[in-house]
Amino acid sequence: MLFDEIAIIGVGLIGGSVGLAAKAKGVARTVVGMGRDAANLDKARQLGAIDRGTTDLPEAVRKADLIVVCTPADRIASTILKAAPHCQRNAIFTDGGSTKEQIVLALKKAPTAGLVYVPAHPLAGSEKNGVENARADLFEGRLTILTPTNTTDAAALERVDAFWRSLGSRVTHLDPGKHDRVLAGTSHLPHAVASALAGTIPMEWLQYSAGGLRDTTRVAGGDPELWAAILLENNPATRLALDAFRVRLDELRELLEAKNRDGLIQWLSQGKQVRDALGT
Amino acid sequence: MLFDEIAIIGVGLIGGSVGLAAKAKGVARTVVGMGRDAANLDKARQLGAIDRGTTDLPEAVRKADLIVVCTPADRIASTILKAAPHCQRNAIFTDGGSTKEQIVLALKKAPTAGLVYVPAHPLAGSEKNGVENARADLFEGRLTILTPTNTTDAAALERVDAFWRSLGSRVTHLDPGKHDRVLAGTSHLPHAVASALAGTIPMEWLQYSAGGLRDTTRVAGGDPELWAAILLENNPATRLALDAFRVRLDELRELLEAKNRDGLIQWLSQGKQVRDALGT
Repeated sequence: MLFDEIAIIGVGLIGGSVGLAAKAKGVARTVVGMGRDAANLDKARQLGAIDRGTTDLPEAVRKADLIVVCTPADRIASTILKAAPHCQRNAIFTDGGSTKEQIVLALKKAPTAGLVYVPAHPLAGSEKNGVENARADLFEGRLTILTPTNTTDAAALERVDAFWRSLGSRVTHLDPGKHDRVLAGTSHLPHAVASALAGTIPMEWLQYSAGGLRDTTRVAGGDPELWAAILLENNPATRLALDAFRVRLDELRELLEAKNRDGLIQWLSQGKQVRDALGT
Repeated sequence: MLFDEIAIIGVGLIGGSVGLAAKAKGVARTVVGMGRDAANLDKARQLGAIDRGTTDLPEAVRKADLIVVCTPADRIASTILKAAPHCQRNAIFTDGGSTKEQIVLALKKAPTAGLVYVPAHPLAGSEKNGVENARADLFEGRLTILTPTNTTDAAALERVDAFWRSLGSRVTHLDPGKHDRVLAGTSHLPHAVASALAGTIPMEWLQYSAGGLRDTTRVAGGDPELWAAILLENNPATRLALDAFRVRLDELRELLEAKNRDGLIQWLSQGKQVRDALGT
């Protein structure tokens, strides 16, 4: 077994799926779940995502050799700092947060003796939330991005890399800042755009829509609190992505105003080229 | 049988599906396909979408009692005007165009003796194109919007209503101008936004994306020529929709700048409310 006892802090879609996958793949002997809602922990236990649950953070991490923090992005750093003093020596932290740089910086600013953290972002979110949507195969074939820095413990990095692979995901490494810039484009901007689009359409028009609107707005069904946290954690990069998107939108506005058919076909072709490269 | 002979002008995804559905449902004795590409017509015939094909418009419509124009939106009015003199008396035109007001206006400006046209828009498009993607069940359960005016022949309207229902679709009626304003929001804006989003993302970032970007940009894979025609045909309404969307996007930009978490949650919740009403 890769780990003896794993503690999962925050047992929702991601945390629950980590638990289910860890049990299914025999990655750990014991999976402990920690959360603020005892009823949710009971549900997670009944679903087999955790072996036992607790609402007490020190108690949750006490015997863990791996702690996976799956809280909303804006609470990951503070959760790690609160938990660290209660961990055993050699315990390793990783997480499931959609943003990385702010977390890495916050932990750098508050040096904690013996704290070993390997930042991770499994690209396996969904517009669905909650442990009731967790799946043992959520990470299967998906990409997990680790964002180590030059101070990241090499042995811990190797173990965390093996951990996310053992859950079924592919693993790659990126600089935290680059991760946040790239994900601002590939994940946070799409969410912002989908949400802005949905918010633009009057309810009484929905009966006259088809698959196009459904696909384009799908992620806007995600949890507003989770996404507010992500967008704020990745605030500067998200704003830059929004600005780049607006430039593109302004081009379209001008092409329409000029009734520039050829320019419009070219503009649409550029989008299609990227979309086609993405696959179905 | 509802019709004796149907002529389909433009045998791609929509035209081919009209043919397949008409044959499958026994809506017409004969289905004639007309297009500029003889090889495509051969393919359509082999797929069973048409009984025979011709590249000659007068020959295609000569014996038809229903002509379904499925060319790109910007060629529908001119195609009807070209075909009308060659039709038999009592022939009815309908179409599959995504925009309606410009077509209705163009035909009003060029009054043609005996021309009977019932404008239609089956909401059954896709990012896929071509007769090879046509399906007999493409319209099944989908909505077809008819946009009659006060000069539309009542008996023809009834027959065209029955025709689109017989292909499997639900049918509703809207004023042409309202159709275009609503569809600018529910279809043309989503396409514009998806395409702008895809065009914003550098190719080398695609490897770091997941389902969110794929869903949000899916329709950007559509045919640039077809979509340029649609956006230009519905130019003023599309620009108004783009402006409304930009207002929404600017709100987000300001909320991020102000780090307004509560405002952000509220903004995201408004989008989620619309998205949730749309269903999966």
